[in-house]
Amino acid sequence: MSGTMNTFTMLDIGKTSIIEKPIPTPGANEALVKTTASLICTSDVHTVKGALPVENGRTLGHESVGVIAALGSAVTGFTEGQRVAVNAVTPCFECSYCQRGFTSQCGGMLGGYKYTAQVDGNMAEYFLVPAARANLAPIPDDLADEAAVYACDMLSTGIMGAEHAQISIGDTVVVFAQGAVGLCATIGAKLLGAGRIIAVESIPERIELSKRYGADDIVDFTKGDPVEQIMDLTGGIGADGAIEALGFPQTFEAALACLKAGGTLSNIGYHGENPAPLQLDLPAFGLGMGDKTIRTGLCPGGSDRMRRLFTLMSTGKVDPTPMTTHRFAFADVERAFEMMSNKEDHIVKPLITY
Amino acid sequence: MSGTMNTFTMLDIGKTSIIEKPIPTPGANEALVKTTASLICTSDVHTVKGALPVENGRTLGHESVGVIAALGSAVTGFTEGQRVAVNAVTPCFECSYCQRGFTSQCGGMLGGYKYTAQVDGNMAEYFLVPAARANLAPIPDDLADEAAVYACDMLSTGIMGAEHAQISIGDTVVVFAQGAVGLCATIGAKLLGAGRIIAVESIPERIELSKRYGADDIVDFTKGDPVEQIMDLTGGIGADGAIEALGFPQTFEAALACLKAGGTLSNIGYHGENPAPLQLDLPAFGLGMGDKTIRTGLCPGGSDRMRRLFTLMSTGKVDPTPMTTHRFAFADVERAFEMMSNKEDHIVKPLITY
Amino acid sequence: MSGTMNTFTMLDIGKTSIIEKPIPTPGANEALVKTTASLICTSDVHTVKGALPVENGRTLGHESVGVIAALGSAVTGFTEGQRVAVNAVTPCFECSYCQRGFTSQCGGMLGGYKYTAQVDGNMAEYFLVPAARANLAPIPDDLADEAAVYACDMLSTGIMGAEHAQISIGDTVVVFAQGAVGLCATIGAKLLGAGRIIAVESIPERIELSKRYGADDIVDFTKGDPVEQIMDLTGGIGADGAIEALGFPQTFEAALACLKAGGTLSNIGYHGENPAPLQLDLPAFGLGMGDKTIRTGLCPGGSDRMRRLFTLMSTGKVDPTPMTTHRFAFADVERAFEMMSNKEDHIVKPLITY
Amino acid sequence: MSGTMNTFTMLDIGKTSIIEKPIPTPGANEALVKTTASLICTSDVHTVKGALPVENGRTLGHESVGVIAALGSAVTGFTEGQRVAVNAVTPCFECSYCQRGFTSQCGGMLGGYKYTAQVDGNMAEYFLVPAARANLAPIPDDLADEAAVYACDMLSTGIMGAEHAQISIGDTVVVFAQGAVGLCATIGAKLLGAGRIIAVESIPERIELSKRYGADDIVDFTKGDPVEQIMDLTGGIGADGAIEALGFPQTFEAALACLKAGGTLSNIGYHGENPAPLQLDLPAFGLGMGDKTIRTGLCPGGSDRMRRLFTLMSTGKVDPTPMTTHRFAFADVERAFEMMSNKEDHIVKPLITY
Repeated sequence: MSGTMNTFTMLDIGKTSIIEKPIPTPGANEALVKTTASLICTSDVHTVKGALPVENGRTLGHESVGVIAALGSAVTGFTEGQRVAVNAVTPCFECSYCQRGFTSQCGGMLGGYKYTAQVDGNMAEYFLVPAARANLAPIPDDLADEAAVYACDMLSTGIMGAEHAQISIGDTVVVFAQGAVGLCATIGAKLLGAGRIIAVESIPERIELSKRYGADDIVDFTKGDPVEQIMDLTGGIGADGAIEALGFPQTFEAALACLKAGGTLSNIGYHGENPAPLQLDLPAFGLGMGDKTIRTGLCPGGSDRMRRLFTLMSTGKVDPTPMTTHRFAFADVERAFEMMSNKEDHIVKPLITY
Repeated sequence: MSGTMNTFTMLDIGKTSIIEKPIPTPGANEALVKTTASLICTSDVHTVKGALPVENGRTLGHESVGVIAALGSAVTGFTEGQRVAVNAVTPCFECSYCQRGFTSQCGGMLGGYKYTAQVDGNMAEYFLVPAARANLAPIPDDLADEAAVYACDMLSTGIMGAEHAQISIGDTVVVFAQGAVGLCATIGAKLLGAGRIIAVESIPERIELSKRYGADDIVDFTKGDPVEQIMDLTGGIGADGAIEALGFPQTFEAALACLKAGGTLSNIGYHGENPAPLQLDLPAFGLGMGDKTIRTGLCPGGSDRMRRLFTLMSTGKVDPTPMTTHRFAFADVERAFEMMSNKEDHIVKPLITY
Repeated sequence: MSGTMNTFTMLDIGKTSIIEKPIPTPGANEALVKTTASLICTSDVHTVKGALPVENGRTLGHESVGVIAALGSAVTGFTEGQRVAVNAVTPCFECSYCQRGFTSQCGGMLGGYKYTAQVDGNMAEYFLVPAARANLAPIPDDLADEAAVYACDMLSTGIMGAEHAQISIGDTVVVFAQGAVGLCATIGAKLLGAGRIIAVESIPERIELSKRYGADDIVDFTKGDPVEQIMDLTGGIGADGAIEALGFPQTFEAALACLKAGGTLSNIGYHGENPAPLQLDLPAFGLGMGDKTIRTGLCPGGSDRMRRLFTLMSTGKVDPTPMTTHRFAFADVERAFEMMSNKEDHIVKPLITY
Repeated sequence: MSGTMNTFTMLDIGKTSIIEKPIPTPGANEALVKTTASLICTSDVHTVKGALPVENGRTLGHESVGVIAALGSAVTGFTEGQRVAVNAVTPCFECSYCQRGFTSQCGGMLGGYKYTAQVDGNMAEYFLVPAARANLAPIPDDLADEAAVYACDMLSTGIMGAEHAQISIGDTVVVFAQGAVGLCATIGAKLLGAGRIIAVESIPERIELSKRYGADDIVDFTKGDPVEQIMDLTGGIGADGAIEALGFPQTFEAALACLKAGGTLSNIGYHGENPAPLQLDLPAFGLGMGDKTIRTGLCPGGSDRMRRLFTLMSTGKVDPTPMTTHRFAFADVERAFEMMSNKEDHIVKPLITY
């Protein structure tokens, strides 16, 4: 494989363009994938706004699927032409953090998040996959690319949000914000046996998706304090679990406050845009003794998790495709990115095809 | 409250009758419940066959709901006339076993199972509830008795079967036998995020219910070795979890054999009818080193779990009522019991009303 | 049992005295204990300073052992004259919170903490025990009162701190502050398999006890920033777990900052004295995505845990008595309390005998 | 690196010899280690007896440490000459099993156990290390080879036995057999907070080591039924956890029988010598409903676990070296192996130096 390819690249803060780059050559443990579909993530928007410092000239994107174009010399068990998905997080699976199960903290804090943050991302006609034996996830024949691509980040992250909420069968769980990752947290809460799911959202299109994915009650924060509304809905008792899927100080604080003693706050929102520390209100925190737990995490990587997410889609238990509100050819990716940045036309997720 | 009541009582091995007994008076921490609905359990059938030694003259039954008729002097937080369900297992919640969370082992092995085994059961016009503050579970207004009564044993036990199977999101889980408790294990496996549920069953009516409750594949053991069929369905790899819901040596052994290394066998079948030890085939057991886990349990008790099961029904996530294949007035309970003993007319669960 | 008894009572904020009160009579599920030994807790000091609002005239104390003087009519399994300890937290073991295992949140936030906070405490010649069957913990014959009394709060709370830190075998754990509860957290970290224990403390007597109980390294925060010192000790990587045993904003923040990605902060310090919210520094918190966990809790109650703590003492694995730096007769409890309030003479724990 | 090396090799069932073989060359992800110390394992004895089918000509051994002699082209983060230990289990860390944490089941049942079983073992002057970045564990400067080598199998396996026993603080744990791995299970039970450790053993030298490592009570099975003795010691209640460290049907059955309801049997014994299935006695098993758990496992691999075991040794919390009862130069390895096979002179572990 040689020649050049088009990539969707960040030139500077606030500035992106389709740029030609050489097609990379895989190292011994790497693979090269020819991209067939991508999703644009709000994280990319954060990055281009400057919230995450990256070198100029870095290709964007971390939610892509495709077919294997070339395999490194030490990569066994795969064949060229095979359809594969690659998680947004691509751990080495060998370091101390990975061995302990913290694959998204590969090598250190947030280190598993390599695309865009550390190396070129995968909104490009081709992309490299490190630790390919662990990170290439074959897509089942019965699963379309446009569904499989949701496993790369949205489903993996959102469902992790529910996993971290330590839900017991029949529990009451609140999900703050119903963007794509919040909707996937709702999917996850239902998948893990929540009895009652309360979604906090105000945009009608997202409320509709939220109900479709399992929300039993909607709290519209534009119509009154969400914590009070949640307390009213739960007879003054509060929730067993709360998932923060927005990344705002107010929602984080509300997520803590709406929990009963013994409850768990699972944070999946990215709090990098606002430099001020998050606050733990002491009464809400039980003065540090209320048996409340706060868990955090970043999209878990690896092919085994992808495989299991694919099973949930193949057997019809999860269908993420209604979240795809818009579709674009790769040539129009700049327009898609602009819509995502401005949250135009009630966009949830734009699908890019190649 | 005084006078007499009708009870469905075991007179001797193989012999039952409706018998009049005095209405009991609750002690300080007890409650008296006037029964409105019961389900007959296969465990009662085992008991009458002599598999579990009980005194002659013991009232049968452990799956009943009703309204509070009287409260002991130390029971606060409830009112007479309140609709309540009571779990088949009625722990003290005070002993060492209960404090460690093993409520069905209250006071020692299987000690939480008091109705019929230790004291009169609750297929009677009235019944006593020990440790009433912990064991009385108020039924929500929007939930019918005929649904709520499934929380007493079937849903609590079946879902425990799935909880013990240690399911990760998207896992493959096999459920052996689709009687009522096996169907509830299927409900539980789906509720806890299984990706693919394989149910082992041969009776068409049960297969139909199984698919309705979430089974993706059916293995009919009359058409070939079930382990081989499961291996074929999983590409020779095996399952992540297996739930034994029958209580036969062959199904227990098959449940171990169909697991991949690292898998979990969750036993909920009652193995008391056959005195021979269960066998662990060494290759299937990984010579004792295959990271396989075997977990066992008995219906977990207590009002909090009941409350959470009610939530799952109230929000429409679980509907057990299609398992009610037959209905009887209490006056006809003997006929119902006879049908259950002989598994007539493809009976799954007979509902008794008062 | 009738007549009067001496009690150590809070008359008003900042004011305590030995006061005569009637000896109480146990209700059906209660017991009356004749006190033989108590420990004074820093929480009592907080209470008298006004940090926890309680009615004037409330007896202080929640760490006491004694002999059963009288049993309520429904309390079985115990005999008068039996030596018993009673945990600082006395849950009902029946409510929804208790049934879920959050016994210290009995009935709602911090509700298991009844002595002094809700009813008279047990620094008195006699005291009542609610839910006596669950809360009376017989003291083994081979265990002295002055050792057993440490199970009431210090060992139960400190070891909970270590349990919540989710220690894997060989992990590095930091314990912030080595007062009595922090020393017990050190004991707990060693008991649970920590490989390296770093204690943050500056008082020589406490440092000595800390080393005796298992600390491998001491960080003296008066000699430089403790987070920097911990980073130096760990080669810049940080700790796997951190236990906050002081209740200061600075130590809480340092405990978060000294953790590596994936680490757990276990809070056992009482943060009620300072009304300002605690702060989560975003880089230390991994922007909400660093797989860090924050767990909180209050002394777990119940006789089973007490029994297990007694076993650790009976077999010589834990000896708390070196923490008893001072001894007083109950007649001198006011002097003992004054010393504790002012942290005079390097006091750690004063033992009161009756 | 080229030339030949001496290896301790199995020529046929029952027949071993020192054989010259070519020094192997590491592949891209491998390392070559020059051996400095090994321990002989009873598993090798099983293998030579024919219990585990291996090709004739296979080098024996899986507990070795040494210095890095050569690194594959893709192995970063290590240097030649570095002192390293390598676990008996050398997983790929990339397959589905490894990604789920079952590293000893790498690629399928028991597949992480590669040395001797699948490739040449490491009782040789040089040996290859697969997946070297994950499997090379640097030995701290302050730790001698003869201590570090215990992390390769004995400590990792024995402590896993305790981890799998699900010990709560203060629990009573029985360890069946006090050979080297059973002694390490005793070490593990103490490390994880067991309150009372009952060791089943009859050989005086092993009893002495057992007490040194934390056993509180010794049950000598030659002096009466061990289950009855354990019941007597626990007041008829039984143990919370039992670790089977021998691999005999009788000890497995006794381990199940000595547990109270809710207890956990952790199997680490190798049951490959006896082809008959293991038996689960129904009353001991609670008829399949006693909340008993059976867990199994094989030595967990990977450098992170090794690192943590080293920490426990470096800080003085674990000292395995008293288990080294005999020492041999590699030239005398055949004599050492003979002694181990015949359990001569109360041998526990023979150390081989190069």
